[in-house]
Amino acid sequence: MKSEMPYKLMLTENELPNSWYNVRADMAKKPAPLLDPATKKPVTLEQLSQVFCTELAKQELNDTDRFIEIPEEIRAFYRMYRPAPLVRAYCLEKALGTPAHIFYKFEGNNTSGSHKLNSAIAQAYYAAKQGQKGVTTETGAGQWGTALSMACGYFHIDCDVFMVKCSYEQKPFRREVMRTFGANVIPSPSMTTHAGREILERFPGTTGSLGCAISEAVESAVSRPGYRYVLGSVLSQVLLHQSVIGLETQAALKKYGVKADVIIGCAGGGSNLGGLISPFMGEVLRGEAEYRFIAVEPASCPSLTRGTYAYDFCDTGKVCPLAKMYTLGCGFIPNADHVGGLRYHGMSSILSELYDQGRIEARSVRQTEVFQAAKEFAQAEGILPAPESSHAIKIAMDEARRCRESGEVRNIVFGLTGTGYFDMMAYQRFNDGLMTDYIPSDAEIARSLADLPR
Amino acid sequence: MKSEMPYKLMLTENELPNSWYNVRADMAKKPAPLLDPATKKPVTLEQLSQVFCTELAKQELNDTDRFIEIPEEIRAFYRMYRPAPLVRAYCLEKALGTPAHIFYKFEGNNTSGSHKLNSAIAQAYYAAKQGQKGVTTETGAGQWGTALSMACGYFHIDCDVFMVKCSYEQKPFRREVMRTFGANVIPSPSMTTHAGREILERFPGTTGSLGCAISEAVESAVSRPGYRYVLGSVLSQVLLHQSVIGLETQAALKKYGVKADVIIGCAGGGSNLGGLISPFMGEVLRGEAEYRFIAVEPASCPSLTRGTYAYDFCDTGKVCPLAKMYTLGCGFIPNADHVGGLRYHGMSSILSELYDQGRIEARSVRQTEVFQAAKEFAQAEGILPAPESSHAIKIAMDEARRCRESGEVRNIVFGLTGTGYFDMMAYQRFNDGLMTDYIPSDAEIARSLADLPR
Repeated sequence: MKSEMPYKLMLTENELPNSWYNVRADMAKKPAPLLDPATKKPVTLEQLSQVFCTELAKQELNDTDRFIEIPEEIRAFYRMYRPAPLVRAYCLEKALGTPAHIFYKFEGNNTSGSHKLNSAIAQAYYAAKQGQKGVTTETGAGQWGTALSMACGYFHIDCDVFMVKCSYEQKPFRREVMRTFGANVIPSPSMTTHAGREILERFPGTTGSLGCAISEAVESAVSRPGYRYVLGSVLSQVLLHQSVIGLETQAALKKYGVKADVIIGCAGGGSNLGGLISPFMGEVLRGEAEYRFIAVEPASCPSLTRGTYAYDFCDTGKVCPLAKMYTLGCGFIPNADHVGGLRYHGMSSILSELYDQGRIEARSVRQTEVFQAAKEFAQAEGILPAPESSHAIKIAMDEARRCRESGEVRNIVFGLTGTGYFDMMAYQRFNDGLMTDYIPSDAEIARSLADLPR
Repeated sequence: MKSEMPYKLMLTENELPNSWYNVRADMAKKPAPLLDPATKKPVTLEQLSQVFCTELAKQELNDTDRFIEIPEEIRAFYRMYRPAPLVRAYCLEKALGTPAHIFYKFEGNNTSGSHKLNSAIAQAYYAAKQGQKGVTTETGAGQWGTALSMACGYFHIDCDVFMVKCSYEQKPFRREVMRTFGANVIPSPSMTTHAGREILERFPGTTGSLGCAISEAVESAVSRPGYRYVLGSVLSQVLLHQSVIGLETQAALKKYGVKADVIIGCAGGGSNLGGLISPFMGEVLRGEAEYRFIAVEPASCPSLTRGTYAYDFCDTGKVCPLAKMYTLGCGFIPNADHVGGLRYHGMSSILSELYDQGRIEARSVRQTEVFQAAKEFAQAEGILPAPESSHAIKIAMDEARRCRESGEVRNIVFGLTGTGYFDMMAYQRFNDGLMTDYIPSDAEIARSLADLPR
């Protein structure tokens, strides 16, 4: 158990990145632009600025500046919980009997419990700086809503969270955390928007969907003066903010003289994976280094491994721009059996393009094996991981077991995006042996893909 | 917001304490010894060793060794989540407009969510080292049970947690965390013990009490070969292990050149307060420095501020030794209105003696003002505090406001013992304006004190 290397490869506050890294600047072939669904032409800054804060719209469209300075106000907030620890998983290595060295970047040591806070604070800052009264968003599992509530509480702006009604009712504790930070949490569909009222009229008693919540949040922002809409994943601006994860990881590995061999992250919309790998991908794109990158997605929502690379709507409600991405079709909804997050039908256009270029591997894993890995990890490392993060754990453990068989000493790095405190209902199902696996049929995926825009 | 001083006054892993500090060694007048309830004579090592592991029994009786070395196996575990950050509360200071400098020692950044892990890992280690099959304990709110489950999972020994039945039913998530770490969680009263069956026969349908759970856990340990009983607070061994909190705080303040003026902690059985203040109290006892110490307890369970200093049973079931302590009587049960922990009828004999010597101040606070402070703290500092910890927050904020009025620049240090993720039901009551305050009447306290052993 003893080693020259500490358990936590810490950076000091002075080593916190000054700028976010924009991987698009190093991509020879850029991600395809967002399109206006009506004209099929690239959306303009002016169009985007009606929905997003202007600075964020600029970041969304910026594919040339390699670094974008992090404003001091955001850095001040980051210093409350960052640099996040890069942990050497000595105990897990021992439990697995592997010669591999395993490292995880732990983003769960802030009250929101996940990496989502890195982008939430940036988006809240730009809204406050632009003089907005507040922002609106949707939340499903609740990590994003929690992070945004904290961020808006800090900058004293309103935060309206449209929370999918079934989640609002099943996760009252998530809801209360948001309220404690001062957010206004509205079960969706609601009577406060046209979109919500229409759905309630057509489907009385519906428990809602993420697609409907997005429609309500967007309408609520654009129809009221002083409000903007914000989103926690998928968008290129979000990957930009999340690059702080990868930059710190890169700096810590360099500080301790470790060269990563493989870098692994879970992937839903791509916020964590993109943030973690992009500075390393930059090294690859500039010809400075080689790494293996692995995206891990749920077998029940396999956009990279079983989707199509095409233009699709970002939202089920079809009010948002079209993005070129690996998608299962915007009407795809994971089976009710699926317990974790990572339920987005598409994937960040940056990651989709890099995957299409063959620069990223992808794996899909069943949730029962994910929870088994989560439990083994918790018992070894003393951290209760979020189900989302546990997708990466599962594949990291598989890679480490392969090293045990081959005898190779590899450096495996993975992103531990958050904690599972609010996911104990899912753990209970697993602990009681009641969790099952649902894998969509080819026919099911073909059906939702048939509806792609042309 | 800028300062020479960082947000987190971090120590490196190399600065982790090598030994626990035993404040009893520096006390001229020692805490009164535990007594055998039958003979009223001090309990012997032999007697204690039938219930506790031998090393722990020795620590319980050791009032002469100032330092006790922390075994390397425990230090290895500590390194996974320690040193814990000492945070400069810049944002809270700004929100309060105070010239005071506020620091908090944050013990919530481990999966168990509280400082309880510091002693749990020690107790599990000694049990494993002594070749025990496992340990038994009771848990009410669940912090201790969670920490012990993690610790036992790490050392691969059994962990039987008797969880008060109403808590078992109302806090299913706490229960699942324990099960995920491999613990056996038994709702108490249960049919697995004589004590449990007797209570169930007398009071069918009872939802249990901490006193009953202790009786079941002790019986379950002493009646089975290979098991020992462990406890998360009150005992002197627990305060010894928790001294790691105070030692780190002392080292970090020294490293950054800060002299504390007042040190504040919440107090239930005394594990956190004792751990935090004891190294500083040692300086006072040795005549090296002066500090103000403040114990903060709930107005609904005010053992220091309204109790009596006398010998009493440590447990409601009257199976444990007698301890001399500030007590409300071992039959005292806080009103059902009380939502947080800190519901123990007595107080650590070490802290009781120091309080009796006038070396510690005590305050009692109402839970509605505690939750108000918790909410203000969460919004400023981005950490959702446990209700227990928020007692200390409330008084720290009061002290900071006094500095604002007087213009004094004081260094206020308090213990932030844990996070409130599993306490959202209580936050909800507060957020909805439904929380009330219950303060026991003098007659009520006199009634439970009338039953003190003679």
